Amino acid sequence: MNQVIELIKTDVKKEKPAANALGFGKHFTDYMFVMDYNQEDGWHHPRITPYAPLVLDPSVMVFHYGQAIFEGLKAYRTKDGRVLLFRPEKNVARLNLSCQRMSIPQIDEEIVLDAIKQLVEIEKDWIPNEEGTSLYIRPFIIATEPSLGVHPSREYKLMVILSPVGSYYSDQLKPVRIYVEDEYVRAVPGGVGFVKTSGNYAASLKAQEKAELLGYDQVLWLDGVERKYIEEVGSMNIFFKINGEVVTPKLNGSILGGITRDSVIELLKHWNIPVKEAKISIDEINQAFQKGELEEVFGTGTAAVISPVGELKWKDTTMNISKGNNGNTLANRIYEEITSIQLGKAEDPFNWTIEIK
Amino acid sequence: MNQVIELIKTDVKKEKPAANALGFGKHFTDYMFVMDYNQEDGWHHPRITPYAPLVLDPSVMVFHYGQAIFEGLKAYRTKDGRVLLFRPEKNVARLNLSCQRMSIPQIDEEIVLDAIKQLVEIEKDWIPNEEGTSLYIRPFIIATEPSLGVHPSREYKLMVILSPVGSYYSDQLKPVRIYVEDEYVRAVPGGVGFVKTSGNYAASLKAQEKAELLGYDQVLWLDGVERKYIEEVGSMNIFFKINGEVVTPKLNGSILGGITRDSVIELLKHWNIPVKEAKISIDEINQAFQKGELEEVFGTGTAAVISPVGELKWKDTTMNISKGNNGNTLANRIYEEITSIQLGKAEDPFNWTIEIK
Ligand SMILES: Cc1ncc(COP(=O)(O)O)c(C=O)c1O
Ligand SMILES: Cc1ncc(COP(=O)(O)O)c(C=O)c1O
Repeated sequence: MNQVIELIKTDVKKEKPAANALGFGKHFTDYMFVMDYNQEDGWHHPRITPYAPLVLDPSVMVFHYGQAIFEGLKAYRTKDGRVLLFRPEKNVARLNLSCQRMSIPQIDEEIVLDAIKQLVEIEKDWIPNEEGTSLYIRPFIIATEPSLGVHPSREYKLMVILSPVGSYYSDQLKPVRIYVEDEYVRAVPGGVGFVKTSGNYAASLKAQEKAELLGYDQVLWLDGVERKYIEEVGSMNIFFKINGEVVTPKLNGSILGGITRDSVIELLKHWNIPVKEAKISIDEINQAFQKGELEEVFGTGTAAVISPVGELKWKDTTMNISKGNNGNTLANRIYEEITSIQLGKAEDPFNWTIEIK
Repeated sequence: MNQVIELIKTDVKKEKPAANALGFGKHFTDYMFVMDYNQEDGWHHPRITPYAPLVLDPSVMVFHYGQAIFEGLKAYRTKDGRVLLFRPEKNVARLNLSCQRMSIPQIDEEIVLDAIKQLVEIEKDWIPNEEGTSLYIRPFIIATEPSLGVHPSREYKLMVILSPVGSYYSDQLKPVRIYVEDEYVRAVPGGVGFVKTSGNYAASLKAQEKAELLGYDQVLWLDGVERKYIEEVGSMNIFFKINGEVVTPKLNGSILGGITRDSVIELLKHWNIPVKEAKISIDEINQAFQKGELEEVFGTGTAAVISPVGELKWKDTTMNISKGNNGNTLANRIYEEITSIQLGKAEDPFNWTIEIK
């Protein structure tokens, strides 16, 4: 494509929120990236433009038929003031995978990656400095054809917005309590669970509400066919350490191929810690727990990086996993290593980070 | 609630499209209905206001997490100039069912029904006169909280827009050719297939594209667990007439409870034609076909009312059903009866229609 990204400047600058008031995805920076699609011109007019509301006809397809996909990644500020992205090319590739499943025209990954870099460069003053904070990057595509016929939209907008964020969970490495959901289903092979389309998240809200009502933080989804194999958590993949070996559900077409998940697997291999991807039933996990072999459970995702699981509730069984989070867990070691790479504090043997300058 | 609907007038009137240029959901009338939700005021400020674009922050939740639901119904103009709605209270009740599953606050059904009536009354000149045309009514709710956290939105907009439409399918009673999908899955029990949420339609696009590529008009979905039980068509429920008896898949939690489906069942009972709701496998249908007992197949839905199916393609099997659509089919008889009720040409023993005045 090789299109030049236009920059439309603004002098209006918002006040930056205090570090302790960041939250997640509540504040947005001064600029955003926008690119349009129509059938004549394909993806065209890439531009960085002042952050502003969208003006959309009430009939645009995203409101009615949910043709919408997104990504999530972060920019980090290092101690010495450099700006790093973590494996952004993976997010852009996954955006295209989502495009493909959701009948959205493919994007030029290079131009979107370039857009992310330029936008973050312009907005680098928005990257907070404090421990656990970062600049969250949200690329997304919405269907904008004004039409109520059910068919792939003939018009789209790709946008990138930026939000300075604190940690997603208020207490970063505090173990979370997870409810194993056996009534609601998130996704099924042949469906859209393996891509980041908006409807997957809407479909998960009811179960999340139920879990919170019962006093849990998050939901662990089981497969939708046999209702016994482990899939993933709300917006995290999940790992189990059993008898010294680490196992995570294999990518089966209904769970998201998380980039943190992939990084954790690579890191464990690098450390020569046994790790495998497999079909795991909740029964097996419970058996391991009953035998005293379930050593650790943790979730992985961009928002929290690593999130230790302290308790799994499955029907009448309560599995208490964290016997005191003494800081010597594998979860903590992985968290330390990945965040150190992200923050430029440790070497990056995998070439995961990209510096923006 | 008992809220008064405010009317915000406009003198700007669009030109009405010619009957042969209507299409489906391409043209919209001069007014729309809007009502807002926030946590302090609940659903508030119901108003009929000039049709106009929405101004929405790029972070509003509908773009990212697909919390959006909709309905579809029609207003018809009778020969003697009256305006009729067909079972609108059913659509409003189903909207609330969708709210419930998608964690959207319940609406006051009376006020929404009232809004639909008032809006159609104001826009009655937009109802086209020609055979097969009507005014399509699209109520919908979108999540409008500007936030990237995954949780039920704390702000919503409920809107109703109106579109004068021709028949959804260009040739009304021309039998459609249907591809039985055995790779992609639309919905599964425990999921959201039984409500009208936007993501269900986005998830169906890929299979629809595939069917069209293979030369078929629509997809027939099989269940997502065993991949053998019949569910429904893209936006229609499905009926089979086998050996004089009519059967349609029973509502199992993954298919939509169509209002046309319900009306057809009531009508058949009224006519003393045997009809049942049951779990039906595609195998059974094929066996009936091979034995020469599959007499008719038809879809039911608001858009086309009744749509005869001429061919079912399942793996290597082609079932040719319509042995010449000679006008003596049950599908045609049902179509005639329901459209006659809708257009005020026949008596309405079921009290299905509501006159607007
Ligand atoms: C459903 C789901 N699973 C897993 C993940 C973790 O993926 P990643 O590590 O790429 O952030 C996410 C978040 O992106 C998600 O939304
Ligand atoms: C998935 C689906 N199934 C069935 C139907 C038919 O329902 P109704 O008869 O209420 O229009 C529709 C259309 O509303 C639909 O979207």
